[in-house]
Amino acid sequence: MDGKCCTCRAPVNIAVIKYWGKRDEKLILPVNSSLSATLGMDELHAKTSVAASSQFKDDRIWLNGKEESVSNPRIQNVLKEIRRRYAQKGDGDSAVMKVHICSENNFPTAAGLASSAAGYACMVYTLARLYGVDGELSEVARQGSGSACRSVYGGFVLWEKGQRSDGTDSLAKQIAPADHWPALRILILVVSDQKKQVGSTEGMQTTVATSELMQRRIEVVPQHTEQMIKAIKDRDFETFARITMQESNQFHAVCLDTYPPVFYLTDTSRLIIQMVHAYNTMCEKTRVAYTFDAGPNACLYLMEEDVARVVGLVNHFFPPGSDTSENFVRGRPVTLLEQPSQEELAHFQIPRSESAIKYMIHTKVGSGPEELNEEESLLTSSGLPKNLL
Amino acid sequence: MDGKCCTCRAPVNIAVIKYWGKRDEKLILPVNSSLSATLGMDELHAKTSVAASSQFKDDRIWLNGKEESVSNPRIQNVLKEIRRRYAQKGDGDSAVMKVHICSENNFPTAAGLASSAAGYACMVYTLARLYGVDGELSEVARQGSGSACRSVYGGFVLWEKGQRSDGTDSLAKQIAPADHWPALRILILVVSDQKKQVGSTEGMQTTVATSELMQRRIEVVPQHTEQMIKAIKDRDFETFARITMQESNQFHAVCLDTYPPVFYLTDTSRLIIQMVHAYNTMCEKTRVAYTFDAGPNACLYLMEEDVARVVGLVNHFFPPGSDTSENFVRGRPVTLLEQPSQEELAHFQIPRSESAIKYMIHTKVGSGPEELNEEESLLTSSGLPKNLL
Repeated sequence: MDGKCCTCRAPVNIAVIKYWGKRDEKLILPVNSSLSATLGMDELHAKTSVAASSQFKDDRIWLNGKEESVSNPRIQNVLKEIRRRYAQKGDGDSAVMKVHICSENNFPTAAGLASSAAGYACMVYTLARLYGVDGELSEVARQGSGSACRSVYGGFVLWEKGQRSDGTDSLAKQIAPADHWPALRILILVVSDQKKQVGSTEGMQTTVATSELMQRRIEVVPQHTEQMIKAIKDRDFETFARITMQESNQFHAVCLDTYPPVFYLTDTSRLIIQMVHAYNTMCEKTRVAYTFDAGPNACLYLMEEDVARVVGLVNHFFPPGSDTSENFVRGRPVTLLEQPSQEELAHFQIPRSESAIKYMIHTKVGSGPEELNEEESLLTSSGLPKNLL
Repeated sequence: MDGKCCTCRAPVNIAVIKYWGKRDEKLILPVNSSLSATLGMDELHAKTSVAASSQFKDDRIWLNGKEESVSNPRIQNVLKEIRRRYAQKGDGDSAVMKVHICSENNFPTAAGLASSAAGYACMVYTLARLYGVDGELSEVARQGSGSACRSVYGGFVLWEKGQRSDGTDSLAKQIAPADHWPALRILILVVSDQKKQVGSTEGMQTTVATSELMQRRIEVVPQHTEQMIKAIKDRDFETFARITMQESNQFHAVCLDTYPPVFYLTDTSRLIIQMVHAYNTMCEKTRVAYTFDAGPNACLYLMEEDVARVVGLVNHFFPPGSDTSENFVRGRPVTLLEQPSQEELAHFQIPRSESAIKYMIHTKVGSGPEELNEEESLLTSSGLPKNLL
């Protein structure tokens, strides 16, 4: 495989049953199962090229245009595991060549969207392709970043916590394919003020060590998961939405019960939550669900028929600043309606907050990682990044 | 007792073990015991005059200069219970005369400080004085507003949840007098943006009905309470402070786990929390504790020796707006120090927020309700308020 190169892209996923807390830090084994939807790659993806060559002296890695240390233990976990599987095949040269890895996201890392999931899933998928390694890749991706194991598949993906101490049963599996629920849409609201957050690795360690309520959460997540799987299979939006919101709130509740407390929601996040509940109350039906990860950005799940109306409300309550030249609505096209009526607005007891939301991304549930054509490569024929910062 | 009048004042209390959730809505019986410090009445109090006269046609009540309906069930609970006890004494006219009640707080109701506790405690205490009713008053005050039962005593007060379904053992008792911990000080930070909150009656009902984590909280509060009583008796500030902060965070965590979620903390509350933890980290010792009730205002517990330094930091991070003419530091005098040094400020990774805090009130643990002189009366000799809005 001397001089070979492979380029792939992998999706972002947003959990509706939240992963927060490890039972094994080294193998990245979670205290509870989690469940996510994989987002459409046309809107959000990581892209990775890996080249292997006997000419390379060292393994090297470039992330978003900047060379990083390959000695990062999580990168090492992934490289070692893929090489171990390659050696096991026994059909190649077991003295494995060095690799150059180059990875980029098509969305700003500063947007606070969990980029490590897509990044590690893509790295694992690309390495596996290059080495011709088969078998379950979610177990490898998990050892890069826990939630990355869910980005190995499209559609709706369950990461089963597993029972074994070696982690071999802590795997992701698809519970419904990308086209299972065609009318479901996703709207990501990127909040402007991205404060420096407590990292999720540190945050979840402190929660497991100090939150008294966490024990109860671990007891109730299996019920949430079971109900959620049924709701997805039945395309029962009301149940799906309610559990999604309760899960998000409960995850942030155990963060707050951590000592010292960990905060990810801001006043803007809170206004978005109030807007969603007010919308559902106005509709006399749960038509939109919010979920927040370890940051202030909202991810809304909703039906296609509600997208224009909800975008209109976001536009009204969180109008872009007059100095904004960038697109406020990105991703899949949205047919904008006229302004919300006064009658409609009377249902919302929330103030208007100009510039509080930077932009929206409109997407839907998408498929898993895929290999791209050679011309998409991020590396030159000599194995160096085409674009360096 | 025709034509009699009595005027009293009663204190505010701030819980360090939080009351959130009733097991009986009508009798106001809590799901867990709670514990508070009574604040000094020179800084914060409710004042109530009650006149009884055979000339009065109806019971009437004026709160902060405005006549309110006396048919409010909580006011009725209190009136009925005091009259029942009066009738039981059997030494008076059992055809009880009508009363005029007039009550005022010496702090703005809009400040979001729990005023109902002081108000109901004062009403009960004054009625009991006027009627010459003896016996346990916390049981009566509890039926006006749960936390009011703790304002019937000074010092540190435990409200025992009790076991009986009639509530006769759900009483407050003093666990340490007002002068038990002379060096303890209290600093209330009144946050400027008092958003419309979900009321605590409604909020706690929804939490009990929907929060899955609440069940675990009810299991752990007895341990918190036991440790807290010991910490107060031992004057062990570090334990007192840690449990106070964990209790506050856990109460807000179950609010967030409520569906729909209930929010009382704002971005300003969060910055205060971060400031306190950074201060404690800088001191390498827990020297300040925060606690938040059903609103964004902070109540800080700290030692006398730390007051000037903490006030200086609040002044720095939350400076009053240039248009502020009112006193920023109120209550007990504070000897202001020079500005915090750059070295000191380097420990705080928080932004400055001008005008985010309206003012501070400096106080300490104080005594229980007391009767005032006749000239303090809020009512004229004909039983009408001296000051009407």
